[in-house]
Amino acid sequence: MIQSRNTELNREEPWLTIVKVGGAVVEDEQQLARLLQDFCAIEGPKILVHGGGRRATKMAERLGIETKMVNGRRITDADMLEVVTMVYGGLVNKNVVARLQALGCNAIGLTGADANIILSTKRPVTVVDGLPVDFGFVGDVKQADGGTLASLIDAGLIPVIAPLTHDGQGHLLNTNADTMASETAKAMAAAGYDVTLIYAFEKPGVLRNPDDDNSVIPTITRADFDAYRTDGTISGGMLPKIENALAATDAGVKRVIITSATAIDGHHGTVIYS
Amino acid sequence: MIQSRNTELNREEPWLTIVKVGGAVVEDEQQLARLLQDFCAIEGPKILVHGGGRRATKMAERLGIETKMVNGRRITDADMLEVVTMVYGGLVNKNVVARLQALGCNAIGLTGADANIILSTKRPVTVVDGLPVDFGFVGDVKQADGGTLASLIDAGLIPVIAPLTHDGQGHLLNTNADTMASETAKAMAAAGYDVTLIYAFEKPGVLRNPDDDNSVIPTITRADFDAYRTDGTISGGMLPKIENALAATDAGVKRVIITSATAIDGHHGTVIYS
Repeated sequence: MIQSRNTELNREEPWLTIVKVGGAVVEDEQQLARLLQDFCAIEGPKILVHGGGRRATKMAERLGIETKMVNGRRITDADMLEVVTMVYGGLVNKNVVARLQALGCNAIGLTGADANIILSTKRPVTVVDGLPVDFGFVGDVKQADGGTLASLIDAGLIPVIAPLTHDGQGHLLNTNADTMASETAKAMAAAGYDVTLIYAFEKPGVLRNPDDDNSVIPTITRADFDAYRTDGTISGGMLPKIENALAATDAGVKRVIITSATAIDGHHGTVIYS
Repeated sequence: MIQSRNTELNREEPWLTIVKVGGAVVEDEQQLARLLQDFCAIEGPKILVHGGGRRATKMAERLGIETKMVNGRRITDADMLEVVTMVYGGLVNKNVVARLQALGCNAIGLTGADANIILSTKRPVTVVDGLPVDFGFVGDVKQADGGTLASLIDAGLIPVIAPLTHDGQGHLLNTNADTMASETAKAMAAAGYDVTLIYAFEKPGVLRNPDDDNSVIPTITRADFDAYRTDGTISGGMLPKIENALAATDAGVKRVIITSATAIDGHHGTVIYS
């Protein structure tokens, strides 16, 4: 019995690293070049999930389409859906893929519609600050297909995922890239991978003091989080980020790392685990 | 010996149908809906290659970017490359994929950069009508990877290919969709498929009399083509189309069919074979 249990525990799950990178990095030529090189250098199977919101806002402006945000989320009417489809699925995704190819990284660009990897439902009218808000063509992830992603990875491919999903009825939906990354991570954990999910952003990690980049909190468990929230060390926009990270680890993702876009090697930033 | 030879001859190659559909169909809602339904109804493995030039021209106009054509080919400067990347790789490709998914057709959208399926070289300055023309970021296909496409098809996926390739150095290149279709067809023939390549356009086939849609020539071999060219039955823009089709059949593609976008079942139009 003991031996069998040990065997079970020692069974090596294949590693998988998922990196989510936001629009600010994607848009800055120098930061993007560095990020793509560092991403290619990560050993083992990997997936890149990217944003592109700032570029979408600029393109919308050039086309005379007004950008409306509620609580940091984009209202996506039919015109804006065209813009994000062009910018996320075309401009950003295909350029990232071509550049990864040049680095010897066999990338394949995907939206949730491609190979049906991420299905979503159109968000119903939601009450925000007491008022009903129709976010339009925005999708809430319903199901990510880890098996199909695993078969692409087994074929030696590196998925590069744009923040668009589909509803299975022929419609694309604008979808939050952070959520797509965590849902993909959960699906890959369910598919048998030892998953590290890395959120790359402008700060070196979760900071004890927001004004001091040297105050990175190295690890956060749920007990730590509860304490930091109670004493006010962690507040504001970082709260839902860490809630999501903990939810991902509860769902089987081994660790979530919040780190700088210039330090995605897994040895920097804040490690969040259950 | 004889038995072994017979076995060899009777070996059934897997069928593969490649349909190329132009921008005019892609842009017309009714025609597109019909085309996608008919495409889904094709039995066996299949690939869709699409254009999107008219929509790119409209988007360029909205962005204040001038469209310049030489001999029917688009001059692609950096701004125009952004437009075609957005329109072909994003807007057209991802909407077609989402709609095929809704029809139960497990589509995966690809450019030549994705999974490195089609590599090209930037076209050098070319002499057209005695004058040097720089087509800009336009790619001439160097190599299509039938093996990778075959592995996606084996995984039950249906590739939907946008007319963009890459140079392996990190740059996307605008590429003629007809050429991408024929190069893909040749690569799939080399990968062991019995390939039927269908060019769907606005006419019911190659016409004996351009003004009579009932004058479709049912079959054209190279000998027929030489005769039709000599007697003037076939002329103008149809000549290079048929030259390309014959070149594809010389390179192993079993048959090329030129037909209407409303009749892609393989039983209509003009069949070209060696």
